[in-house]
Amino acid sequence: MSDLAPESKPAETPEVAVGLDTSLVEAVVAALAAGDAEAAGRLIEPLHAADTADLLQGLDNDQRRLLLGVISKELLPAVLPELDDTVRDDIIAELGLAETAAAVADLETDDALLVISDLDAEDQKLVLAAMPPPDRALIAQALAYPEYSAGRLMQRELVALPLFWTVGETIDHLRQTAEHDADLLPTAFYDVFVVDPKHRPVGSLSLSRLIRARRQVPLSALMQTDLKVLRTTTDQEDVAFLFRQRDLTSAPVVDEGGRLVGVVTIDDVVDVIDEEHEDDIMHLGGVSEDDFYRASFATARARFTWLLVNLGTAVLASAVIGLFDATIEQMVALAVLMPIVASMGGNAGTQTLTVAVRALATKQLTPTNALRVISKETMVGFVNGIIFAVITGTVAWLWFDNLGLGVVIGLAMVVNLLVAGLSGVVIPLILDWRGIDPAVASSVFLTTLTDVIGFFAFLGLGTWLLL
Amino acid sequence: MSDLAPESKPAETPEVAVGLDTSLVEAVVAALAAGDAEAAGRLIEPLHAADTADLLQGLDNDQRRLLLGVISKELLPAVLPELDDTVRDDIIAELGLAETAAAVADLETDDALLVISDLDAEDQKLVLAAMPPPDRALIAQALAYPEYSAGRLMQRELVALPLFWTVGETIDHLRQTAEHDADLLPTAFYDVFVVDPKHRPVGSLSLSRLIRARRQVPLSALMQTDLKVLRTTTDQEDVAFLFRQRDLTSAPVVDEGGRLVGVVTIDDVVDVIDEEHEDDIMHLGGVSEDDFYRASFATARARFTWLLVNLGTAVLASAVIGLFDATIEQMVALAVLMPIVASMGGNAGTQTLTVAVRALATKQLTPTNALRVISKETMVGFVNGIIFAVITGTVAWLWFDNLGLGVVIGLAMVVNLLVAGLSGVVIPLILDWRGIDPAVASSVFLTTLTDVIGFFAFLGLGTWLLL
Repeated sequence: MSDLAPESKPAETPEVAVGLDTSLVEAVVAALAAGDAEAAGRLIEPLHAADTADLLQGLDNDQRRLLLGVISKELLPAVLPELDDTVRDDIIAELGLAETAAAVADLETDDALLVISDLDAEDQKLVLAAMPPPDRALIAQALAYPEYSAGRLMQRELVALPLFWTVGETIDHLRQTAEHDADLLPTAFYDVFVVDPKHRPVGSLSLSRLIRARRQVPLSALMQTDLKVLRTTTDQEDVAFLFRQRDLTSAPVVDEGGRLVGVVTIDDVVDVIDEEHEDDIMHLGGVSEDDFYRASFATARARFTWLLVNLGTAVLASAVIGLFDATIEQMVALAVLMPIVASMGGNAGTQTLTVAVRALATKQLTPTNALRVISKETMVGFVNGIIFAVITGTVAWLWFDNLGLGVVIGLAMVVNLLVAGLSGVVIPLILDWRGIDPAVASSVFLTTLTDVIGFFAFLGLGTWLLL
Repeated sequence: MSDLAPESKPAETPEVAVGLDTSLVEAVVAALAAGDAEAAGRLIEPLHAADTADLLQGLDNDQRRLLLGVISKELLPAVLPELDDTVRDDIIAELGLAETAAAVADLETDDALLVISDLDAEDQKLVLAAMPPPDRALIAQALAYPEYSAGRLMQRELVALPLFWTVGETIDHLRQTAEHDADLLPTAFYDVFVVDPKHRPVGSLSLSRLIRARRQVPLSALMQTDLKVLRTTTDQEDVAFLFRQRDLTSAPVVDEGGRLVGVVTIDDVVDVIDEEHEDDIMHLGGVSEDDFYRASFATARARFTWLLVNLGTAVLASAVIGLFDATIEQMVALAVLMPIVASMGGNAGTQTLTVAVRALATKQLTPTNALRVISKETMVGFVNGIIFAVITGTVAWLWFDNLGLGVVIGLAMVVNLLVAGLSGVVIPLILDWRGIDPAVASSVFLTTLTDVIGFFAFLGLGTWLLL
């Protein structure tokens, strides 16, 4: 690295390269298609591990197997943690457990844990058994913490210093450790932690504060003492909330005795935020988890349950229509118009639901303001109900030249949009209060309700007022 | 801070406090209700700025105004950047521009920019005019960069060092600057940047590497040279992608000449990730932006457009039903069952759409694998179409004791779920390719298609086969 020639670096590149270069991907695919796996290997050699992972994910199974054969043993470990779960499972099956264990042993504890925790219990044991004993013990210990906890996220490598040390002593200690026991230091860290004699964290000190202070200054004079200390059992969503709210880069983790046992860093938290994001989006869309890399039949099976639940609610809505078959026989216009009321209710309710689910996730919707939010959303539903009653009523009146029909659809619209606004916030609140993730279950309850109320109000009012 | 008594700190707190303590919120609300704003002020004094912001957001307008009166001038600046946009607008209107300008002048450039850029152009000018000249110039310059660009995200304060320096010289320089020109140093930083004589970045060096190296080591021997350099114009989504993919904590930003002008740090990127997340969720739910803190009428107006678009598509679907009014008159069972086919198509299509929109956003769905994904999703639609054809067909057959009706609904189901799978991925691909955000517009196209095809296939097949 010391022989670099900075003047030859094109610092004024026109745009920043984000993601993989399509022409590179095409060249790799072409080389693989031509059976020249080695040429493909040469093409990917300069890539960052994250880019190599993206490339592997973009290939089909045969191409992936070929390319995997030419990724060197040195590069492979760094690629594994960057892969999507499904693709990683395939690749680990391809590599075999011995090679996987060798690759995992090269990783830091948090990355190794990430790879191992996705394996099934049997494979976990086999990979662990193939690892060197000290790593094995650390990983096994981490696996004992609950899933999605700070214990799973944290890394063991950290810098803990006694309260009576100075800046100079700290820097000397870091230099000596780097020279003699480099493995004890984390590869990257942002804060050092000050501990009392019982190894409980009493302060944290960012490197940017440490490095600008004079050697003789005591750590106790520099450190920040209003620490947010995590427990090994703290849920990862709470960890993410704290990091975001306080703009943290790292946070200490303590065991039941309050002793410092690890540190969670911002890069792990960014992954958690992404994971949460993905879960929210997928659940609201009725997908149990991201199945982008899954095979067709496995995907179809995974999505089946949600569709079956929706079939149930659709049949329920049909049963409501069935109550009014005599009415429809006399006035087919009701059948023509009836999906409008149900659909508008579903859409208005989904708007409210989306805002409410998000506000619950970000702790903005709380017991303190729940009543205010409920009355606001009901009011929003009522206002838009009135407006769309006028629009839809006029359309129906002109279309079928029947003023009564316009009045009926207008009244049904007000009822359904009001119910949609109310239930769009009440349903997620009830689910959250019962400990059920509102992102998963809210929408099916909501659309059932808006369908049933929509059809019932419109056809019921039609029977009552028009026949 | 040097008089701290660590042994009195309750390091073994049973659980980590996340978010606001409900009992504290209740006490504040009670004090405000009793007209004792000063008691409320004493209650919130020990809070972190982020918690104070959360508390302000949870109050209604009157309570908020009262509490605002007792937040001290010293605490207020830190609270402003933590607030939701809508609430911040209200609070700024309450404070007046002079007080806002004073508060903003106390902030670092990136936080000040965040507050100012949300104001309308007129207020921006007034606040800028009320600020001290050096800050004013920096903010005005930053406002000249495009919205959602690295130029807007970056902070000006950074540490740039010449290539020929050593670790020791760097540390001495940082200590001297901290003592004599502390304002020139960023409050928190994670990397220092090495620049050539033209001030172009040629390397970066994390503090955790710098602090463990011996004084005589040259920076050129330690620094990392495969830099991801951002332009001031780089889109913030690309910035977020790079930070996530490479686990960066900071990245240098250069101007058109390649000169280092700022640095983007991970805390700003986490905010961008949250913002993107919110946009995705809101757009998929048919909400233009988060309106949680908006008043009822403003919210109703903001949601109106989306509902109007959906009314259009619902009327279109009704028109399709209208084509078959004669058929329905002869066989009301068709009207009873018809929402099932449309609803299943909508749900299956939304599942595919959700996965496709997410895969586009994360750059996993690319030109290389688009065809493979399209054929997979069509296959998933076909497989679930067959399965639900059998289930729904049987239900319809038994319900109406009419085998032909069961066959018709089964055939319509296969057609609609196949179209749903195909269009669930093709629609977002086309929108993305045309430069339209697929999260915003996909679902309305999709549900229009699945409604129209669902009703047309079912009623059309019914007319053809049953009458």
